[in-house]
Amino acid sequence: MGHFFDSDTEVTPGADGIYNAEITDRWTGLHGRPLGSYGLAVGMRALARQMPHSDPLSVSAYFLRPIEVGPAETRTELVHKGRRMSFGQVTLSQGGEEKLRAVAAFADLPDLDGPASSFGDAPQLPPPDECVDPLADLAMPGITLLDRVEYRTTEVPGWLRGEPGTSPTRDFWMRLRDGREPDPLALTFLWDAMSPMVLEIGRAPSTTLEAAIHIRRRPAPGWLACRAATRHITGSLCEENMGIWDSTGNLVAQSRQLTLLTP
Amino acid sequence: MGHFFDSDTEVTPGADGIYNAEITDRWTGLHGRPLGSYGLAVGMRALARQMPHSDPLSVSAYFLRPIEVGPAETRTELVHKGRRMSFGQVTLSQGGEEKLRAVAAFADLPDLDGPASSFGDAPQLPPPDECVDPLADLAMPGITLLDRVEYRTTEVPGWLRGEPGTSPTRDFWMRLRDGREPDPLALTFLWDAMSPMVLEIGRAPSTTLEAAIHIRRRPAPGWLACRAATRHITGSLCEENMGIWDSTGNLVAQSRQLTLLTP
Repeated sequence: MGHFFDSDTEVTPGADGIYNAEITDRWTGLHGRPLGSYGLAVGMRALARQMPHSDPLSVSAYFLRPIEVGPAETRTELVHKGRRMSFGQVTLSQGGEEKLRAVAAFADLPDLDGPASSFGDAPQLPPPDECVDPLADLAMPGITLLDRVEYRTTEVPGWLRGEPGTSPTRDFWMRLRDGREPDPLALTFLWDAMSPMVLEIGRAPSTTLEAAIHIRRRPAPGWLACRAATRHITGSLCEENMGIWDSTGNLVAQSRQLTLLTP
Repeated sequence: MGHFFDSDTEVTPGADGIYNAEITDRWTGLHGRPLGSYGLAVGMRALARQMPHSDPLSVSAYFLRPIEVGPAETRTELVHKGRRMSFGQVTLSQGGEEKLRAVAAFADLPDLDGPASSFGDAPQLPPPDECVDPLADLAMPGITLLDRVEYRTTEVPGWLRGEPGTSPTRDFWMRLRDGREPDPLALTFLWDAMSPMVLEIGRAPSTTLEAAIHIRRRPAPGWLACRAATRHITGSLCEENMGIWDSTGNLVAQSRQLTLLTP
């Protein structure tokens, strides 16, 4: 009994650092296409096989063109092998067109672990079983992501009730529906497995241009506590910040993406 | 009468997208070596010459090995040319060793401009002439960066008085000393032209592993208002966030870097 995330990011080795993959229709978002971060996870799974260290530590991705359902080819490159960390690059192409490019640092995350201190900016959430499922009364056909990932929030977000608010921020719980536990690879997908924050203030969905994801620690099993926030909209651009904590309260990932707003 | 920033980032075209540069000793930091972000600005200047759009919009950089004073070779690649933006990549090598690698999106920034909204997180500063020069009474030989960049703060930071505090954050003004006005290229350097935030809480200096810089707008001439903050230290890792506003109060850049702490 496998999990969707594992079977849908599977890669088959070819020659010279090339790995082939099949992009499925099981991870589509608001725009009806596969999420860019799903394509990124496929690329990171291929790159991980070339890297001498075990965990993605930092991933910087550029989304050049929309990813489509169908075959994909990833090209991986080990750029530099250091003692504590190594650096690599991966591109994902479909039909001969490059769709995404990512540079990444890998490390053995437990080697970088130690005491933590935080200076604000963590989610404030009651336990998941005291929260609501914001999608319980909602049908959103075509957004297959919602069959893969589930959420818990303190209340149904305003924009889902047709009443957007004034703050593009949200605290929520998240996990893969089929019991697949989080790990660093899953975090390279989950940082974007939610609706854009600008929906909270009544704007149209945005598309991701670039994202940087830092994986701080291997997550413990269970729900992930998340805080997503946009601080600055300037013209057609905004950033979206995401922090992810595991079920034991440890920060496990941070991401920031630059998005292009729909006029 | 040229400016140091322009002469010290100059690149000479070779064949096949290669540009040669000379890394000077005029931009060294606490560790006595040229700042990684100075090397990045050299690489971005080379890449800009290959790109069909005029401004860096997003830059993602990996710092593989320390940059040294001396000759450097940059290799540029136009990855994808789109209508509104284009994507490229640059590596900077010295002595045959790759020192840094960056992927970037370029655009014509005025095309992306429009009304702005902010949701917190902007610096609170009196005008520069009501602030102090935090380095006025300080000699820091070997840190040539301080001869290139000047700062204004509301008071001399605690760590500079030997009294570190409890909050790794700082608001300050910044500009290039010789009157060179800020532009998008200078912002690909200035995001890291300051001491690490962890010094504010008495920790040893950190080194930058990765950074993402978003350039939101071409800056107006004059001082830049900055807010730098670290929110989460976990073991050997911390992130440092930087926001830069121009003299007319517009957000012009955001950056986040992942740093490795010295034990």
